[in-house]
Amino acid sequence: MAELKEIPLMEKIVSLCKRRGFIYQSSEIYGGINGFWDYGPLGAELKRNVKELWWRDMVQLRDDVVGLEATIIMSPQIWRASGHVDTFSDPMCDCKTCKGRFRADQTGEIPCPQKPSQMVSECHGEKTAPRAFNLMFQTYVGPVQDESAIAYLRPETAQAIFAQFKNVLETSRQKVPFGIAQVGKAFRNEVTPRNFTFRSREFEQMELEFFIKPDEVVEAISGNVASVSDSQPSTLNPQPNWGWEAWHKYWVAERIAFYESIGLPRTTLEEYWQKPEELAHYAKVCVDILFKFPFGTQELEGIAARSDFDLSQHQRFSGKPMAVFDEELRAAWGKLPKEKQDALWRRFYENRKKYLVKTGVAEEQASKDATNDANGLAKGQYIPHVIEPSAGVDRLILALICDAYHEDQMPDEKGKQETRVVLKFHPRVAPIKVAVLPLLKNKPDLVKKAQAVRDLLRPHMNVFYDDAGAIGRRYRRQDEAGTPFCVTIDFDTLGEKPELKDTVTVRYRDDGRQERLKISELLDFLLSKIR
Amino acid sequence: MAELKEIPLMEKIVSLCKRRGFIYQSSEIYGGINGFWDYGPLGAELKRNVKELWWRDMVQLRDDVVGLEATIIMSPQIWRASGHVDTFSDPMCDCKTCKGRFRADQTGEIPCPQKPSQMVSECHGEKTAPRAFNLMFQTYVGPVQDESAIAYLRPETAQAIFAQFKNVLETSRQKVPFGIAQVGKAFRNEVTPRNFTFRSREFEQMELEFFIKPDEVVEAISGNVASVSDSQPSTLNPQPNWGWEAWHKYWVAERIAFYESIGLPRTTLEEYWQKPEELAHYAKVCVDILFKFPFGTQELEGIAARSDFDLSQHQRFSGKPMAVFDEELRAAWGKLPKEKQDALWRRFYENRKKYLVKTGVAEEQASKDATNDANGLAKGQYIPHVIEPSAGVDRLILALICDAYHEDQMPDEKGKQETRVVLKFHPRVAPIKVAVLPLLKNKPDLVKKAQAVRDLLRPHMNVFYDDAGAIGRRYRRQDEAGTPFCVTIDFDTLGEKPELKDTVTVRYRDDGRQERLKISELLDFLLSKIR
Repeated sequence: MAELKEIPLMEKIVSLCKRRGFIYQSSEIYGGINGFWDYGPLGAELKRNVKELWWRDMVQLRDDVVGLEATIIMSPQIWRASGHVDTFSDPMCDCKTCKGRFRADQTGEIPCPQKPSQMVSECHGEKTAPRAFNLMFQTYVGPVQDESAIAYLRPETAQAIFAQFKNVLETSRQKVPFGIAQVGKAFRNEVTPRNFTFRSREFEQMELEFFIKPDEVVEAISGNVASVSDSQPSTLNPQPNWGWEAWHKYWVAERIAFYESIGLPRTTLEEYWQKPEELAHYAKVCVDILFKFPFGTQELEGIAARSDFDLSQHQRFSGKPMAVFDEELRAAWGKLPKEKQDALWRRFYENRKKYLVKTGVAEEQASKDATNDANGLAKGQYIPHVIEPSAGVDRLILALICDAYHEDQMPDEKGKQETRVVLKFHPRVAPIKVAVLPLLKNKPDLVKKAQAVRDLLRPHMNVFYDDAGAIGRRYRRQDEAGTPFCVTIDFDTLGEKPELKDTVTVRYRDDGRQERLKISELLDFLLSKIR
Repeated sequence: MAELKEIPLMEKIVSLCKRRGFIYQSSEIYGGINGFWDYGPLGAELKRNVKELWWRDMVQLRDDVVGLEATIIMSPQIWRASGHVDTFSDPMCDCKTCKGRFRADQTGEIPCPQKPSQMVSECHGEKTAPRAFNLMFQTYVGPVQDESAIAYLRPETAQAIFAQFKNVLETSRQKVPFGIAQVGKAFRNEVTPRNFTFRSREFEQMELEFFIKPDEVVEAISGNVASVSDSQPSTLNPQPNWGWEAWHKYWVAERIAFYESIGLPRTTLEEYWQKPEELAHYAKVCVDILFKFPFGTQELEGIAARSDFDLSQHQRFSGKPMAVFDEELRAAWGKLPKEKQDALWRRFYENRKKYLVKTGVAEEQASKDATNDANGLAKGQYIPHVIEPSAGVDRLILALICDAYHEDQMPDEKGKQETRVVLKFHPRVAPIKVAVLPLLKNKPDLVKKAQAVRDLLRPHMNVFYDDAGAIGRRYRRQDEAGTPFCVTIDFDTLGEKPELKDTVTVRYRDDGRQERLKISELLDFLLSKIR
């Protein structure tokens, strides 16, 4: 299969995804729709596993995070408060000759529709000046299509968390620091969707907003704010004196540990600290976790320290207070010496004022509002800051598939070396955990026994039952699907060799190794591998 | 609490949902958005459990169903083929006086905006003639907003399954009969959303399309089609000679069993067979499963026999063949006596022709096409028919909450009878499975032990740890959240009475009964209850 090697890796992956039912083009029978992808039977299970593992790690196994499931269409006010209505846009220009519309900053990379051998920037057509094109999909809610009925498909899941912050706080018995997690679809009308599912117009996010005390509050309560030295990784056991830097570092470490736990080796990941000029104006810092895709090293997740920007914006736009009451702060504040109070008050005041001025509030009003906010400290009141680990599900699925894809040599049934394609998924994410295979289809005893094994395992994991074709062929099919274990029921299982009665062959996907196990031990063996 | 009883039940349920974080109004801080609802921490877990149990029942535990996860925005051609662009609409009229727009068939129920004491139908404003208002949300994909860029938010998840039928068939190793399942959001721009979350504009569906052989094919292969007598429920073990009636009956029984398995008593459900005049023109039969909501008996799920309408429509609109090749049919057909072949051919031909004529194909062309289709039988070719169990997630969540809601009398800590609110969820769906409670918060040994119990259980289920307040108050809070078990760690757990060392109290939500269990037996005990 030498020629197989000559096909670019990405092309082989796309082809496997279609062939084995991981990913199809949306609406393929109608010629597709650019930037939209469907998950087939194997892809849907892979995606379910990844989302489930994220939820388990982020919500179920923690005391300090709760879930939320908000709607995709929300009040358009939310997107005014977040800034998306005004600024979530790409610069576009039109070609006056061909009437095409292009990303103004990409005309050097996009082929001219009329003469694809040259780029848009090289063609002679006169271009309009760049104009902002908002990336939010727009629709109308209700029977009348006018201005007041305009709504947007959310371009991120995060804002719903901020909008429901107070409701969750009041009903969940949580206290800052705590987080709200959400998994769900988001939509961006990308001008040039690309790199398979990496940049799609419809995609899914897994986002956590982890709300923390402002540093001044931490200092008032704990007496100091933990220093974060680069050389010494912060402990993974959260401490009361952690400020935003320690929490941010903690979440970067947690998230990298998550990716490793689902099978992405540390060597495939990179940490990228955004440069000051790349940061959104409200962000104190943002670390991207990148994966080495065949088409380049690209972002899987961003972990940003977003200060109190989001909650403050929603307080401003909704008129609803977003501050929490913190009994610990109130008690601690009263015991602080006057100089300490003044110093913390001043720092808090400066930060609030900076935010207000940045968002367009006039100097005088900003001073007044910031004074008011800083006076809240003595009453135990503040708007929480937030650390946001925000991951894309679809790009993670793509990373898992790219990382799992291997071609190797394995002997076929007659011992002849053969090239095989194998997806070496971590058993935790593998769509099918185990294939149950009766050696022969036409022996009722084998089939009955195999079905009993299937029924034993199925309540606990995804099982694929396959009785069609030579056993070697069936192994290869499971290799391509990424199934970590194959269990074969043969004549020894039925007692042909009495000492092997009620044992089965377990075959390992990665190296083809086989071993015999008692059926009675099979479930525990598999559970220990897939959990 | 006599006055509590006087509040209508639905109002109390809505209030509990908000108070305990099951359901909030979307975008509440901005005054909400009509017809959109968010799930808070408890609601999100409840919903996750229900979707997970559906998937387990419909996909994981079966050999003959696979999953799909398709996009919300698809090619608009899909909605032309399905008929939604032309016919998915409500009749609307405008009032020339107040400029309001109303469902023309509901003017007798909607208060006049200018004089709410009278209904729209009673006011003097002149109304326009009713016009069709399409219920699909519309948007534009890509940078140019013109006709060709119009797309819709899917009004149902089903059509994606039909559009991807061939891809799934070719990549999943399934053969008819088999099903494709999908869970996901759908959108309908309802003119008057109502009954809390029951009729929302954004909602979630759980749909199965189960593809079966046409009756003529079953007869060709099996020699007969199983008769379905009303008095005798069909066996729950699918048989090769089942035609559409047996399959339909099977799925009705399966789905009712599902609802019972997650805690809805059979007495709260009704089966409603749609009358011939209520059926969609392509449906042979449709059974609705209804639940007795406080606001009326309303549909949870519809189970329709949809013939080969959907796949045929997509074949017609896409030009892509939707017929399957069935080796069994090809082999069986050749062995049939000529008269039998002719009779089956004729019936198949008549059905296909009827479909074609109904969908607007001219008589002569329909005869030609139907002849062609019927000639496929000899080659083992046909378009599968489909049974569609289609359930709404949000209305099921609402049904579970309504059914679980109880007020009863229970003694408080001092033995005084008190009215309590309790959600008697089946443990399978309960958002929190167990609360772990140290008797006292300020005894480090109790807290340490309680945290060890929490950490023992948490990898296997949703655990809530609560150490705040009197133990009776903590029980009541869990009652309202629907938590089936509370585990209390007290001084006996620590060995105050040596014979009780390492035992805990397990309290049952429904009757307040308590029993002591060894910690070492706790996990198995709880798993046996929640699975």
